[in-house]
Amino acid sequence: MKDKELIEEKLNQVAQILRECDIDLWLTFTRETMTMPDPILELILGFTVTWHSAFILGKSGRKVAIVGRYESDTVRNLGLYDHVIGYDKGIGRHLLSTLDEFKPKTIAVNYSQSDAAADGLTHGNFLTLRGYLKKTAYIDRLVSAEEIISALRGRKTPLEIDRVRRAIEITESILDRVSDAVSPGMTQRQIAAMFQDHIENQGLGYAWDKLHNPIVTCGPESAIGHTIPGDVPLEKGHTLHIDFGVKVNEYCSDIQRMWYVLEDGETTAPDDVQHAFNTVYGALKAGEKVLKPGIEGRQVDSVARQFIIDAGYPEYMHAFGHLLGRFAHDGATILGPLWEKYEGLSNRKVEVGNIFTLELHVPVPGRGIMSLEEDVLVTENGVEYLTTPQEQLRYIRP
Amino acid sequence: MKDKELIEEKLNQVAQILRECDIDLWLTFTRETMTMPDPILELILGFTVTWHSAFILGKSGRKVAIVGRYESDTVRNLGLYDHVIGYDKGIGRHLLSTLDEFKPKTIAVNYSQSDAAADGLTHGNFLTLRGYLKKTAYIDRLVSAEEIISALRGRKTPLEIDRVRRAIEITESILDRVSDAVSPGMTQRQIAAMFQDHIENQGLGYAWDKLHNPIVTCGPESAIGHTIPGDVPLEKGHTLHIDFGVKVNEYCSDIQRMWYVLEDGETTAPDDVQHAFNTVYGALKAGEKVLKPGIEGRQVDSVARQFIIDAGYPEYMHAFGHLLGRFAHDGATILGPLWEKYEGLSNRKVEVGNIFTLELHVPVPGRGIMSLEEDVLVTENGVEYLTTPQEQLRYIRP
Repeated sequence: MKDKELIEEKLNQVAQILRECDIDLWLTFTRETMTMPDPILELILGFTVTWHSAFILGKSGRKVAIVGRYESDTVRNLGLYDHVIGYDKGIGRHLLSTLDEFKPKTIAVNYSQSDAAADGLTHGNFLTLRGYLKKTAYIDRLVSAEEIISALRGRKTPLEIDRVRRAIEITESILDRVSDAVSPGMTQRQIAAMFQDHIENQGLGYAWDKLHNPIVTCGPESAIGHTIPGDVPLEKGHTLHIDFGVKVNEYCSDIQRMWYVLEDGETTAPDDVQHAFNTVYGALKAGEKVLKPGIEGRQVDSVARQFIIDAGYPEYMHAFGHLLGRFAHDGATILGPLWEKYEGLSNRKVEVGNIFTLELHVPVPGRGIMSLEEDVLVTENGVEYLTTPQEQLRYIRP
Repeated sequence: MKDKELIEEKLNQVAQILRECDIDLWLTFTRETMTMPDPILELILGFTVTWHSAFILGKSGRKVAIVGRYESDTVRNLGLYDHVIGYDKGIGRHLLSTLDEFKPKTIAVNYSQSDAAADGLTHGNFLTLRGYLKKTAYIDRLVSAEEIISALRGRKTPLEIDRVRRAIEITESILDRVSDAVSPGMTQRQIAAMFQDHIENQGLGYAWDKLHNPIVTCGPESAIGHTIPGDVPLEKGHTLHIDFGVKVNEYCSDIQRMWYVLEDGETTAPDDVQHAFNTVYGALKAGEKVLKPGIEGRQVDSVARQFIIDAGYPEYMHAFGHLLGRFAHDGATILGPLWEKYEGLSNRKVEVGNIFTLELHVPVPGRGIMSLEEDVLVTENGVEYLTTPQEQLRYIRP
């Protein structure tokens, strides 16, 4: 299995995280994961299961899997779990007897109101699990595994960091090649198609839904956000904005880049465009300067947001950054404001090994938007750029 | 969007199903569907959403979507919903005001203990939804949408049936081509690689996890089930069994085929092998004969199972059939026994438009297993085979 080494790296992080969170046992309870995949399985198992299955990780480091009989040989042969139980008709009694071995005072299960990546337990499975536990003391020991999953997903291992680097490298190479080929008059749809051709021809994956990957924004009428590229043509005197990410070997990039389409006779961007670029670039740098282990996400967002407001631009209606990894939005800790939609994610603390996007935009009236996004790795003292940051506006010549 | 016409077909089925189930409103409540996809979204939306989103379908046929501002233009442009609301900071008040418009007495949400494909609501999202409803009368009106989803997913539309046919056609062509190339001495792994080469070269998808697709079983020591192909070589006098499925245009096939490796001098299979084939084939036919609208899944399984037992073979420890479609295991209604692991699925009634697998195996001591699987469409009076059924054992010559 190609991911075995990476999954071993992740499983090796678990016992330490359980001790930090003071949780005895972490139970991933799932079924039919082709249909309804708990996203954590990619980090602790690496393949799909059919019947009700339990992956039990203890504070001591012990790992037990309970799966349907017809899948037990496969799980056993992977060698990731110390003990594998296969059952025929039902998981119930095997689950209870395994819990009795561990005697946990707290059992963390995968639900979270704030973190979608830690919310892999469906409500139906939650009810089934409670049904199995109802006559035992364990029923009152269930807690949310959000802290565990957030730490496990957020603290990228060396193999994970390598994979994100590789995805970014490929993305930057595609951005360069398309940049050389873009010219005024092309529509958003035509520009998007060039990116998608590179993805398809190289056999890459999309970091997010193909319908709006890349996002192509140009001109003042262009909608902002997760929009589908349309028939708007690229015009002189307008900005061109691309938000693009690929998935390589299951890990993602997420990058935004900016161009200005020179008017006949222009050799540089006019002041309003350059000022917008400087402001967005400055805000990203200001946010980056305070991004280090221990700071809360909202504090980072607030520095960048204030920079934009101080420069006289309207504030952006999204977060300044999100985690990046196996998904473009890779779980908890948002560098964002304390809005309802970011509830419980913006006041989490940044950790070493987190990979964040840094992104924001301002409008450039009459011309389009100005929006940049970089990907950075949090280190002991600050950050390391994984992207080659865009420090200059790029030009498209007539 | 390539699936738009198909999604319109599915959305058009909803109001009728809600009336049959006597449910006023069906609410799909979700977020970050790249990370944690509710599988029903592929049938009612067709792309991924980021922030908390609600897809509200009423008995009258009215369809309302509430999504984050940055995705609202995209949903609006798809034209699938009558009304699309985009929000900036939180979904709560928009959800409540929309419910107030519908004034539903029952609100079905996506959880199910028995049907994984109807269990797309995570426990965290369930808590968030209850939080929004807690000061309203709606909190006591939530019911499971499993009946709705089961009917919607199970009743295949013409476009869906076409897609399954196409996946089966391609699968059968690959089975024929590999069959011609297999010879004694090849290992399970080598045989599996030939199938996977066809998948990769034709740019197809896997109907289930690539790790055990195809399943290749040969010889008496071969493990049964969702096992990874190993180094066991194909030997004369043994059976070869393949369980293989592809995904084409998002729809799946799932087929099992059998070969016998002739010994030097043999021109047909020995009696024990032929008898096993006849028994498995006979059991499939016996099950097929009783499969029609209105029968419960367990009744169909019981006929096939009894056929095997009457022939003196041990009963198979799985179900006789499952639904097939967008997933290899495409939701509710199992043609299976009343075991804990099939709880609530084996006593559901078969409906017109269901596509089922019919599958079972018997051991052939000293030689391997004998296992067949066909895919059939339930019609008004019985079934139509979508596969070209295997009626004769195939031979591999030394």
